[in-house]
Amino acid sequence: MSAISVVMGSKSDWPTVKEGCKILDQFGVDYEKNVISAHRMPNEMFAFAQNAVEKGTKVIIACAGGAAHLPGMIAANTPLPVIGIPGQTKALGGMDSLLSIVQMPAGIPVATQAIGVAGAKNAALLALQILGINDPAIQQQILDYRKQMHDQSVESGAHLD
Amino acid sequence: MSAISVVMGSKSDWPTVKEGCKILDQFGVDYEKNVISAHRMPNEMFAFAQNAVEKGTKVIIACAGGAAHLPGMIAANTPLPVIGIPGQTKALGGMDSLLSIVQMPAGIPVATQAIGVAGAKNAALLALQILGINDPAIQQQILDYRKQMHDQSVESGAHLD
Amino acid sequence: MSAISVVMGSKSDWPTVKEGCKILDQFGVDYEKNVISAHRMPNEMFAFAQNAVEKGTKVIIACAGGAAHLPGMIAANTPLPVIGIPGQTKALGGMDSLLSIVQMPAGIPVATQAIGVAGAKNAALLALQILGINDPAIQQQILDYRKQMHDQSVESGAHLD
Amino acid sequence: MSAISVVMGSKSDWPTVKEGCKILDQFGVDYEKNVISAHRMPNEMFAFAQNAVEKGTKVIIACAGGAAHLPGMIAANTPLPVIGIPGQTKALGGMDSLLSIVQMPAGIPVATQAIGVAGAKNAALLALQILGINDPAIQQQILDYRKQMHDQSVESGAHLD
Amino acid sequence: MSAISVVMGSKSDWPTVKEGCKILDQFGVDYEKNVISAHRMPNEMFAFAQNAVEKGTKVIIACAGGAAHLPGMIAANTPLPVIGIPGQTKALGGMDSLLSIVQMPAGIPVATQAIGVAGAKNAALLALQILGINDPAIQQQILDYRKQMHDQSVESGAHLD
Amino acid sequence: MSAISVVMGSKSDWPTVKEGCKILDQFGVDYEKNVISAHRMPNEMFAFAQNAVEKGTKVIIACAGGAAHLPGMIAANTPLPVIGIPGQTKALGGMDSLLSIVQMPAGIPVATQAIGVAGAKNAALLALQILGINDPAIQQQILDYRKQMHDQSVESGAHLD
Amino acid sequence: MSAISVVMGSKSDWPTVKEGCKILDQFGVDYEKNVISAHRMPNEMFAFAQNAVEKGTKVIIACAGGAAHLPGMIAANTPLPVIGIPGQTKALGGMDSLLSIVQMPAGIPVATQAIGVAGAKNAALLALQILGINDPAIQQQILDYRKQMHDQSVESGAHLD
Amino acid sequence: MSAISVVMGSKSDWPTVKEGCKILDQFGVDYEKNVISAHRMPNEMFAFAQNAVEKGTKVIIACAGGAAHLPGMIAANTPLPVIGIPGQTKALGGMDSLLSIVQMPAGIPVATQAIGVAGAKNAALLALQILGINDPAIQQQILDYRKQMHDQSVESGAHLD
Repeated sequence: MSAISVVMGSKSDWPTVKEGCKILDQFGVDYEKNVISAHRMPNEMFAFAQNAVEKGTKVIIACAGGAAHLPGMIAANTPLPVIGIPGQTKALGGMDSLLSIVQMPAGIPVATQAIGVAGAKNAALLALQILGINDPAIQQQILDYRKQMHDQSVESGAHLD
Repeated sequence: MSAISVVMGSKSDWPTVKEGCKILDQFGVDYEKNVISAHRMPNEMFAFAQNAVEKGTKVIIACAGGAAHLPGMIAANTPLPVIGIPGQTKALGGMDSLLSIVQMPAGIPVATQAIGVAGAKNAALLALQILGINDPAIQQQILDYRKQMHDQSVESGAHLD
Repeated sequence: MSAISVVMGSKSDWPTVKEGCKILDQFGVDYEKNVISAHRMPNEMFAFAQNAVEKGTKVIIACAGGAAHLPGMIAANTPLPVIGIPGQTKALGGMDSLLSIVQMPAGIPVATQAIGVAGAKNAALLALQILGINDPAIQQQILDYRKQMHDQSVESGAHLD
Repeated sequence: MSAISVVMGSKSDWPTVKEGCKILDQFGVDYEKNVISAHRMPNEMFAFAQNAVEKGTKVIIACAGGAAHLPGMIAANTPLPVIGIPGQTKALGGMDSLLSIVQMPAGIPVATQAIGVAGAKNAALLALQILGINDPAIQQQILDYRKQMHDQSVESGAHLD
Repeated sequence: MSAISVVMGSKSDWPTVKEGCKILDQFGVDYEKNVISAHRMPNEMFAFAQNAVEKGTKVIIACAGGAAHLPGMIAANTPLPVIGIPGQTKALGGMDSLLSIVQMPAGIPVATQAIGVAGAKNAALLALQILGINDPAIQQQILDYRKQMHDQSVESGAHLD
Repeated sequence: MSAISVVMGSKSDWPTVKEGCKILDQFGVDYEKNVISAHRMPNEMFAFAQNAVEKGTKVIIACAGGAAHLPGMIAANTPLPVIGIPGQTKALGGMDSLLSIVQMPAGIPVATQAIGVAGAKNAALLALQILGINDPAIQQQILDYRKQMHDQSVESGAHLD
Repeated sequence: MSAISVVMGSKSDWPTVKEGCKILDQFGVDYEKNVISAHRMPNEMFAFAQNAVEKGTKVIIACAGGAAHLPGMIAANTPLPVIGIPGQTKALGGMDSLLSIVQMPAGIPVATQAIGVAGAKNAALLALQILGINDPAIQQQILDYRKQMHDQSVESGAHLD
Repeated sequence: MSAISVVMGSKSDWPTVKEGCKILDQFGVDYEKNVISAHRMPNEMFAFAQNAVEKGTKVIIACAGGAAHLPGMIAANTPLPVIGIPGQTKALGGMDSLLSIVQMPAGIPVATQAIGVAGAKNAALLALQILGINDPAIQQQILDYRKQMHDQSVESGAHLD
C-alpha cells in the first residue's frame, strides 16, 4: 500500500515523470508507478481510479500529453485529489496538454502543474505537501527541502561571471 | 435503433448541438440524443460507448467544451467513428475545447469539427456523408443539400448593398 | 481556526471566488476569506502565508488575474498546499492569469484550476478532497456531491428540445 | 479501384503521411496515394475530387501544412468523407495548418486529426473505422489493433526505470 | 470591365467588405462585387479566377473567415495579384482566418491585410496603390487621401478632454 | 533605376530574403537590395520611402522580425505598394513579426506574406505579379513559373516510397 | 515645458490614455498630451521625438493599438525613456498591440506596460517613478499613493458578501 | 553603491542577463548583480526591494522565466523603476514569462522588455536612458551607442551576397 500513486499515459512520459519520482525517493515516501493509458487502457484506468481509495492511495499523480484526458478521467472516478502533469509536446509545446488538463468543468478538479519536468517535480512536491498536512515529519522535510533550494540559490549568485 | 447517436457533455451544449440535429431532421435520418457527461457520468459514458456497436449505432457525434474529454473517451471505447464538436468557451473562445478533442494520440482518432455551431452542423453532415458511402439515397441528399447551399450563395450575391 | 483559507488579489475577484465559497458553505466546512493583494499588500501577504501553518490552516485557495502572482508567492512562503484560481481577464481571456499561476518553476507547486468560475468551484472541491483524505465524512460528502451532479446530468438529458 | 485515397499537398508531407499508410498496409486494405497540391495543381485537385465517387473511392485522406486548403477544397468537391491531417510547420508548429483545416464553415465538414504523425496514423485508422461500419472484418481488425496497443501499453509499464 | 474585382465567401462578410468598397466609391474607381464561396461555389470560383485576366481585371480582393480558402484558391488560379481580407470570427477572433490566408506556401502569394474592417479598407487602398503605379491620377488620389487622414489626425489631437 | 526595391531590417534577415531575390534573378528583373533598419536608421528609412516614387521604384519589399515596424513605416511614407515579410523568430516563431506587420490600422496597407522563407519567395512573386499587370512578358513568366511548379508537383507524386 | 509627454496613435486611444492622465493630474505633475499617428503623421512623429530632449521632456508615454509602431518608432528617435501602452483590440484582444510594442530588437528599448487601462495607469506611475529617482517629493507621492491603494485593498476585504 | 542593480531568478538566467551587463560594462556604469529567486528566496527578495532606495539604487533590472514573479514582486516593494526581462522558455517560448511580467495590475508598473537576449540588452539600455535623463554624459553615451549601431547597420548592407 502506497500513499502516492503515479501514473502516466505512455512510457514516453517516463523521462519527465521520473524527475518527480526522484523527489519521492529522496523523501523516502513509498509510491507505486504505472503506465495507464486513458485511450488504450480505458478499463484499467477506471478500475485503477475506482479502487484507489480502497487500496489506501491518498494522492494520485497523472501525466499525459496532447489531448491529455488521463488526469481528468481519473479525477472523475475517485474522490482523491489528482495532480496533473501536462507533457511537453512537439507541435504545440504542451499548450494542448495544459488546456486539456487544467480547463476541467466545475465539479471535477485536477491540481494542474507546469508543463514538463518542472511540473513533474512540483507534482511530487504537492503530493508531499498534501500528505504533510497530517504528517509533521513530511512537512518538516518540505521545509528542509526548501531550505536546501534556498541555500543553493543564494550560493549560485556568488558565481556569476 | 438509430444509425446516428448524438451526445453532449452538458445540457448547456444543446443550443449548439441542436443546429446539427436540425440537419439530421431535415434529412429524415433517425438519431438518438443524450446528455452524457464524461466527468459526471463516467460509467454511463463507458457503457454507452461499449454497447454502441451492438445497439446498431454506426456513427457517434459528441460535443463538449473546455477540457473536452467526451469525444476522445468514447472513441477509446468503440470501434465506430466518433465525430467531435468543440464547444465555444467564455474564457478562451473554444481553443481549449478544440485542442482537447483534436490532439488525440496515435491509435484513437476523433473526427474533429470547427468550434461551435458550424462544427455542430458539419458533424451532422459528416455523419450523413459517412452513412452515404453505402447509402446512395443519403449521398444524393448530400448532393441536393449542397446544391441548395450553392444556389443560396449565388442568390445572396445579388443583394449586396 | 479554519482549515481552509480563501484569499483573492482584489475585491473584483469576489464574484468568481464566491461560487467556490458557496460550495464550502454547502459542505458546512469552516473557512476564512480575505482580500490580500500581492502587489498592494505584500507584507500582509507574506505574514499571511508565513503564519498559516501556525494558525491551523490546512489548505489555501488563492485567486488572482493578469500577472497573477498571489498563488505562487503564497506558495513560496508556506509548506501548505496552495490552490490557484486564474481570474478571467478582459483583454486575453485569462490566458495571462493561467500562465502566471501554472508555470511555476520546480520547487514551489501551485494546484492550478480552470480559468474563472469553474476554477473557483473546483478549487473549493479540491480543498475538500484534500481534507477528505483524512476525514471520511468530508470524503463521503464529495461522493454525495458527485452523486447529485450525476443525477442532475442524467435528468437534464431528458429535456432536450 | 481503392476504397481509400490518400493525397498530400507536397512530397515533403510524405514522411508524415507514410506513417498512416503503413497502418493501411498492415490492415491489408488497398489504397492509392498521390501528391496533389491545391495551389500548384488546382485543376487536378478538382478533377480528383469530382471523380472520386465514380472511381469507387469511399474515403479520402488529405494532408497539408500552413494555409492548408487541400482537405477543405477536396471536401467541397465530393460528397465523400474527407479526413484532414494538419502538417507540422516550422514557424507556428502546425497551429496554422490545424486552423486552416478544422475551422471549416457550416456545410462542408473535414474530419480533422491531430497535427503531424499522430494525425497521419489516426487518419488511416479513422478511414478504416468508417469502412468497418459495413465491413465486419475491418471492424474486427480495428479491435485487434487496439488489443495490441493495449497489451503494449500494459507491457511497457513493467519497464519503468 | 472593372479593374478591381471584390469577392467575399459569404454575404455575412458584406458589412466588413462594404467599408472597403466605400473607399473605392470615394476614389471613383469602377469595381465589381460578388459573393463567391470557395466551398459552396467551387466551380464558379475557379471560373472566376481563371477568366479574370481575360475579363480585364487587374486586382482581386477576396474576403473570407474561419478556414478561409477563398483568397488562396483564387490566387492559385490567376496570375493577378490577390489581396486577402481575414474576416473576424466569433470563437477565435479571426486568428483562424488570418493564418488560413497569410501562411500560403511558396509559389502562390496572397497580399494579406488586417483582420476585419481595417483590413477591408486597406485592401481597397492597396488595390488603388497597385493601380496607381501606372496611373498618376490614382496615385495622386492616394496622396490626397493620406493628406486628409493626416489632417484629421492632427485636428483630433486638439480635442482630448 | 530598379522597379523593385528590397529592404531588410537587419543583415540577419538576408538568408531569408535571399530566397526571394533568387526568384527575381531567375525572372531577370532588376532590383536593388539594402539593409535599412527602422530602429537604427530611421532617417534613412524615411528618406528611402519618401524618395522611392521619384527614383522610379514601383514596388517595395520589406522584411523584419519581432516588433517589425519596417514594412508599415515605409508604407506610411510612400504611395507605392509595400510587401511585408515577417521574419521567423526564436522565442515566438514569428507570430510577433506577423502581427506587427499585418495588423496595420485603416489607411496604410502592407501586403503581408507568410512567415520566413515561403514569405520571402512569395513577396518576390507578388511584386512580379503586380508588375505583370502592365507587363505581359512578366505575366507570362509567372504563368511559366507556375507551370514549372505544377509539373514538379505532379512529378514528385511518382516517387513516394 | 512639461517633463512628461503623452502621445497616442489615434483619438480612439484617449479613453484608455485618459486614465493615466488622471493620475498625473492627481500628482500635480505637468504634462502635455497629443495625438501623433505613426502612420498618418510620420513626419510630425519624427519631429516630436527628435525635439523632445531639447524641449525639456524627460519621459515619453505612447499608446497605440494593432500593429502598434508608435512607441518603438519614437524610441528610435530619442535617447529619452519611452513607455509603451498596448491598446486593447477587437479581434485579438491586444495581443497584436502587445507584441508590436514589447518585442523590440536589441538597441531600442520600450518600457512596455499591460494591455489597456491598467497599462495606461501604470505608464503614468512608471513615468512618475522615473522622475522620482531625482525628485524626493514625487517619490514620496508614489509611496503615499501606494499607501492609499494598500489601505483601500485592506478595507475592501471587510466587505465580501 | 551602484545606481543599477541587476537580479535574476536563477543562475540559469545568467547567459541571458550577461548580455545586458556587457552593455553596462561598456558604458562604464557601476552595477551590482545577484541571483534572487522570488520563490526560493522570498525574504531576501523583499529585503532587497525594500532596502533599495536607502542603498542608493536608482533602477532595478529583474529577469525571470515561466511564472515570472520576480520583477512584479520587487516592483511592489520599492518606488524605484523596475525593468523586467522575460526569460525564453522551453515549452512556450517565453509567452508565459512575458505575460507574467507585463500584465501587471494597475498600481505597480514593470517596464517590460522583449523575451530573451534582446530584452536583456534593452533592459540595460533603458536603465541607462533613465539615468541619462539627469546625467548628460550617459545620455551622450546613448547617442554614441546608437550612432555606432547605425553605422554598423549601414555598413552591413554593403555585404549582402
